[in-house]
Order: sequence, then C-alpha cells, then structure tokens
Amino acid sequence: MAELGTLVLLRHGQSTWNAENLFTGWVDVPLSEQGEGEARRGGELLAETGLLPDVVHTSLLRRAISTANIALDVADRHWIDVKRDWRLNERHYGALQGKDKKQTLAEFGEEQFMLWRRSYDTPPPPIETGSEFSQDADARYADLGAAMPLTECLKDVVARMLPYWESAIVPDLRAGKNVLVAAHGNSLRALVKHLDGISDADIAGLNIPTGIPLRYDLDAELKPRNPGGTYLDPEAAKEAAAAVANQGR
Amino acid sequence: MAELGTLVLLRHGQSTWNAENLFTGWVDVPLSEQGEGEARRGGELLAETGLLPDVVHTSLLRRAISTANIALDVADRHWIDVKRDWRLNERHYGALQGKDKKQTLAEFGEEQFMLWRRSYDTPPPPIETGSEFSQDADARYADLGAAMPLTECLKDVVARMLPYWESAIVPDLRAGKNVLVAAHGNSLRALVKHLDGISDADIAGLNIPTGIPLRYDLDAELKPRNPGGTYLDPEAAKEAAAAVANQGR
Repeated sequence: MAELGTLVLLRHGQSTWNAENLFTGWVDVPLSEQGEGEARRGGELLAETGLLPDVVHTSLLRRAISTANIALDVADRHWIDVKRDWRLNERHYGALQGKDKKQTLAEFGEEQFMLWRRSYDTPPPPIETGSEFSQDADARYADLGAAMPLTECLKDVVARMLPYWESAIVPDLRAGKNVLVAAHGNSLRALVKHLDGISDADIAGLNIPTGIPLRYDLDAELKPRNPGGTYLDPEAAKEAAAAVANQGR
Repeated sequence: MAELGTLVLLRHGQSTWNAENLFTGWVDVPLSEQGEGEARRGGELLAETGLLPDVVHTSLLRRAISTANIALDVADRHWIDVKRDWRLNERHYGALQGKDKKQTLAEFGEEQFMLWRRSYDTPPPPIETGSEFSQDADARYADLGAAMPLTECLKDVVARMLPYWESAIVPDLRAGKNVLVAAHGNSLRALVKHLDGISDADIAGLNIPTGIPLRYDLDAELKPRNPGGTYLDPEAAKEAAAAVANQGR
C-alpha cells in the first residue's frame, strides 16, 4: 500500500477582529497586517522544512483563504490545486458574532463566558435572521439549506467538519498528496480532536497557535505516527499557545 | 435549454518583467505594484457591474494567480471554486525568455523581432534544457512529459489551450456558471481568436489590455452574442490597447 501524503494544518493569522477582541465566527473579516505577516512566516516554514503541499483545502472565509494564498506564494506553491468548503469554516458564534469579548465576559460573567467559549456541547444563543452579523443572505451559503447553522458548539463543528475530512481530504492523502488545510481555531481543533482521539473534556484545554504549520504523519488507518502533531516551529508554538489561552482576560 | 453563464476574461496586470521590458513566457515573475493596482481595478469593475464569477480558471503562473486572488478579493468573490491548468499559461517564448525586448530588437532587426512577436506560426528558437530560464525542473510541469513545450508560436498556444476550453471551461458555462479566466496576453488572444473566428492573419493586430475584464455573452453554440466581447471599462481598454501595440519600440 502506498505511503499516505503528509497532512499540514495552518490556522489563519490575526484578523482585524481578533485585534479588536470581537467574536467573529462566520463574519468574513480580513487579516490584519500582523496576520499577513504570520501567513508569510507560515509559508517560510513550509519552504524551509521542504514540506511542500500538493493541494490546499480552505474554508470559505477570507482570513483562511488569504492565509493560504500568502503562505503558498511565499513557499512557491501558489500553483497547486485549491478546494474550498464551508465545512472548514470557523465555529458559528451565533448571537455573539460581532460582540466584544471583554464586554461579553463582563455582561454574562466568567462561568457563562467560558461555557460558550470552551464547553463541548453548549452553543451560544442562535443569531437572529436578518441581523447585522448573520450570513443568511450570503451567496456562498445559498446551497446549504437546512444545514446552515445559526449557532454552533464545538460538537456541532466536529459533526459538520468530519464528512468533509472523510470525503475530500482523506482521498487526497490516500493519493499520496501532501495536503495543506488552511482553516480556523475551532475547525482545526475539531480535526485534531478526531485525529488524536481527544476526549470531549480534554479538548477544552487545547489551543492551536496561529500561523505555525502543524504536521501530522498518518498511518494507513489515519492514526498519527506523531500523536499531537509536530509544529514546524515548536518554540513559537509554545509561546503562542500560552497567549491564546489568555484571550479575553 | 438553460442559459449559459457569462464568460469574463482578465489579462494579468503589469509584472516586474513587463516593467523591465523582458520577454517572460513561462518564467514565473510576480506582479509589479502597478500590476497589483490593475488587478484591484479589475475587481472593482466586476463588483461595480455586478458581474460576479462563480468559478475562476487560472494558469499556473503567479502573475495570473495573484491577479485572480486580488480581483476576487476586491469583488468579495474570494471564496469561489478555483481551477488551474498549464494550458492557460502564457506562450512559451523559447530562447527569448529572460531577454531584453529592445536589445533583441536591435540584435535581430525589426523583421525577425516582429515575426517572433506577432507571426501566427513562427516560434522563437527553443530554450536550452537546463538553462537559466527553462522550466524543465519545475515540479508543476512534472506530469507534462512530451507535451512540455520548449518554445511556442501562437498557433501552438491555440492547439494546447483549446482542449482545456472544451473540457473544463465550457462545461462550467453550460452549467450556468459565470466563469472568470485569469490568464495572459497570448493564451487569451488564442481564446478570443477561437470565439470570434479571427483569421490567422488578423489575430496579429489584436491586443488585449491588462486588468480590464472582457465580457463574452455566448449562445448555445458558443458563438458570441457580442462579437469582440465587451470591456467593462471601454475607454480605458482603448487607451491601454494602443499602449501595448507600442511595446518594445
């Protein structure tokens, strides 16, 4: 049986709303200048380690798409095949989309705030149809129909992400291709939870840093030979993970 | 029978080698700052006219890929499907790749220069394998085998471009999708020659300006309802075409 291709996960760099400490979810904000720099660094790490993707999968959100475009251009792999799917989108943050994180923490208290941010199966209240930060009129989701979420917990993200993993990403890996997945904090946490068999409780403690490619070498049963994956810049990953954990404080 | 989607052609903006007046061909140079601005303007024209692509086809060359990325981001269509193929590449300029246009004109004289630039069926001398500006070691062309050109005339470009038009672009149009083709002076001239039934002699006089989307409305037989197409900014197209005609003088 042929060797599987290598899987590389890349979380998008800082967006303008990350910088302003707002809940973003499916709101399609651009990368900040810092985020563009993180994407370039991600591309440099791919090039330096010789880990060259043959195909890239992204969400339908600009911050992941731009991250992929920038990183691949830097790594001289701008010409590879591209696949996009809403199933790689960030978690839909429901009625919290567009809200200030600090303000939300103050308004609802630490317990409720952490429940929405980190519990596995408690989604925020659903977003109101037609409200400022809802996506119901967005052409890119016109075909979703009843699958269109109005809010999501991480469990929901796992449920809608896995069919794409199985049907689109795994076949590329089995074809021997190196696959870059450029996506989001929560869609990547959902994937890592699945790959590493992390429990519903333990996934709360896992943060994936931005802009640092995370390599998985999978065996024929799609189990990681390197459980937890391998960051292409382990030092930077450690520092960044600590910073993410303190977001909203 | 369902209406076909709209076809939109977009020639990439100025590259760094356009700016330096060098023959480029398959050498993978980036856009200049001016070229990035042209791509943004192209995206604004798509947005202003409401001509929103559902899928983009590009060559494997950075200047076309970046043009598509920038224009689609500006038009808020960064999330659409992407397809890339070497058959949309610029004409391979053979041994002229990397050479100064003015110097080439002085060295070989007006007649030979114009023959290489504009004759339908006279390719420049082939590029030497392993030379500085050849692509024989380039991973993106590894699967081409004997189809890999060492030089091309426009007739060769027509011959290798048309199979992609038929097999990849036409099916998208027939599915009712608006199709953006982000490509090059000569791959787009080849396509326009085919669409408008331009003779081998007359195609020499046709220049496609950079950065200005060119719309074709095709009937069920793929004949243009608007022969010659419609530039989304006709005034700018007229000025730019005149400037291109004087290149290398």
